[in-house]
Amino acid sequence: MATLKVPANAPPPEEDSEQLRKAFVGLGTDEHAIIKILAHRNGAQRKLIREAYAAAYGEDLLKDLEKEISGDFLRAVLLWTLDPAERDARLANEATKLLTANNFVLMEIACTRSSYDLFKVRQTYHVLYKKGLEEDVAHHTSGDYRKLLAPLVSAFRYEGDEVNMALAKSEAKLLHDKICGKAYADEELIRILTTRSKAQLNATLNQYNDEFGNAITKDLKADPKDEYLRFIRATIKCLTYPERYYAKTLRDSIKGLGTDERALTRVVVTQAEVNMQRIKEEYHKRNSIPLEQAIAGDTSGDYGKVLLELIRNDENCTV
Amino acid sequence: MATLKVPANAPPPEEDSEQLRKAFVGLGTDEHAIIKILAHRNGAQRKLIREAYAAAYGEDLLKDLEKEISGDFLRAVLLWTLDPAERDARLANEATKLLTANNFVLMEIACTRSSYDLFKVRQTYHVLYKKGLEEDVAHHTSGDYRKLLAPLVSAFRYEGDEVNMALAKSEAKLLHDKICGKAYADEELIRILTTRSKAQLNATLNQYNDEFGNAITKDLKADPKDEYLRFIRATIKCLTYPERYYAKTLRDSIKGLGTDERALTRVVVTQAEVNMQRIKEEYHKRNSIPLEQAIAGDTSGDYGKVLLELIRNDENCTV
Repeated sequence: MATLKVPANAPPPEEDSEQLRKAFVGLGTDEHAIIKILAHRNGAQRKLIREAYAAAYGEDLLKDLEKEISGDFLRAVLLWTLDPAERDARLANEATKLLTANNFVLMEIACTRSSYDLFKVRQTYHVLYKKGLEEDVAHHTSGDYRKLLAPLVSAFRYEGDEVNMALAKSEAKLLHDKICGKAYADEELIRILTTRSKAQLNATLNQYNDEFGNAITKDLKADPKDEYLRFIRATIKCLTYPERYYAKTLRDSIKGLGTDERALTRVVVTQAEVNMQRIKEEYHKRNSIPLEQAIAGDTSGDYGKVLLELIRNDENCTV
Repeated sequence: MATLKVPANAPPPEEDSEQLRKAFVGLGTDEHAIIKILAHRNGAQRKLIREAYAAAYGEDLLKDLEKEISGDFLRAVLLWTLDPAERDARLANEATKLLTANNFVLMEIACTRSSYDLFKVRQTYHVLYKKGLEEDVAHHTSGDYRKLLAPLVSAFRYEGDEVNMALAKSEAKLLHDKICGKAYADEELIRILTTRSKAQLNATLNQYNDEFGNAITKDLKADPKDEYLRFIRATIKCLTYPERYYAKTLRDSIKGLGTDERALTRVVVTQAEVNMQRIKEEYHKRNSIPLEQAIAGDTSGDYGKVLLELIRNDENCTV
């Protein structure tokens, strides 16, 4: 369930586009207006606003935003305004680059989007970068990470609910054997994680728990400091309990000194229109404070405001 | 270029459907009519005929064909009549089954279809089998074949003409190093073959030839009896010169005692509407006899007739 709130009678895109233009002109920028409009329009509406803006002013709304605002606020507004497939393609591309390399971002996109949405990311990647997503991922990763990531981003999983219990049983045993043998990058283990439907995988992991007495993620904690093991555990979480994965990622981005704004922004903008309601519930349950409160305490200025607008529960705009 | 000939004024699908029904009723079957109609309708028309048939008689045209005709003729007509994505999904599924396992068929579908057509095969596979194509391929293959096939069938290659010459040079060297070291299933070699665009791969292989004095396929003949090496060579041919691959496959299906009808049928029905003209030219050049003559000499009855109708050059129907 989304947390995004869209007014019942949103103005036509031409009017939104005009209001945004007004927010840019003259001395200073009306950040309040930017948030009020963009943080309360859904993907289809934001797309129409970008089109109306280009038609009326001959400029790209995103480029004009870059001239007016900056820093974390800018990054949040830009990513949010993008169409989801383009946003994911850009995040994924960034995650394959040397200075911004991030296997978790690639895995998150591969594992939490629907099969068709992931395919749309791959299509958009062709258009934007004249290359394939899996081409870049395979080229810029290596070792065990590549073995897992290349098939993850190429997957087109079946999405039906059908479960083959005999298969779940045999593959649970197979996974257990591999994990006991510390063969964490074994090709059978990777095959199961990267090709099975989420329903089938869930049945296999339930079977694992029933048969061997531990959750698989617990058995994958043999060495808590092993980064690759942490990556497999996160992959399994994304595939089976994405809201828990996201709640944990939000927690990690906020806790301690300093904030990981990239992670915080990414989770909020990619999930506000999708699953943020459940992520918030999970966050509250696990951390005993509401996500809004945690974010408000850790962010400031317009950046904090736009994130909070995107995840608020009450129906009325506060900005 | 296709060899399929469709009459300029094809009858409406309802009329074709009625003529087919007439060919089925009473004693005996009018095979001539079946060929005359179905072998001269394109994919969109065949689809409409199936729909019109189902609407008029409440039966599946393919099921009724199964009752009326048999053997190689039936298999050719059924495969031909299917929509290309469904045909490929069925061929691929068959190729993962124990008794009809065929890695070449999987590779052929993965490497010679356009990126989007391969994606449509994966979509259709979900609908038909409630599983993913790569899920079945990864599950039912093993060893080096799986390492190559799983990413091949999951690929969504970029299809632009852009070529990065520096990359072509460095990857040609990489391929040469791996082949010299007999590391034929090396993950870098597989990455290059399974993720690069066909244009980029072609540049890399040209660079290989220029730099090291041999075509890569020649260097991959170190052990002419090695089946996996033969498979890699075929993969490279499919990706860079599909018409040569198909001409060779046709030749292999015809030569010697007996005929490999499955291969012969598969190439004719999957290519008649796509690239058969160039395959025929390649066949003639390489074998010094026209493909029609070779097929006519090696097949008989209605089976031979339907294949010949699909690949003939002259504009008029002979049936």
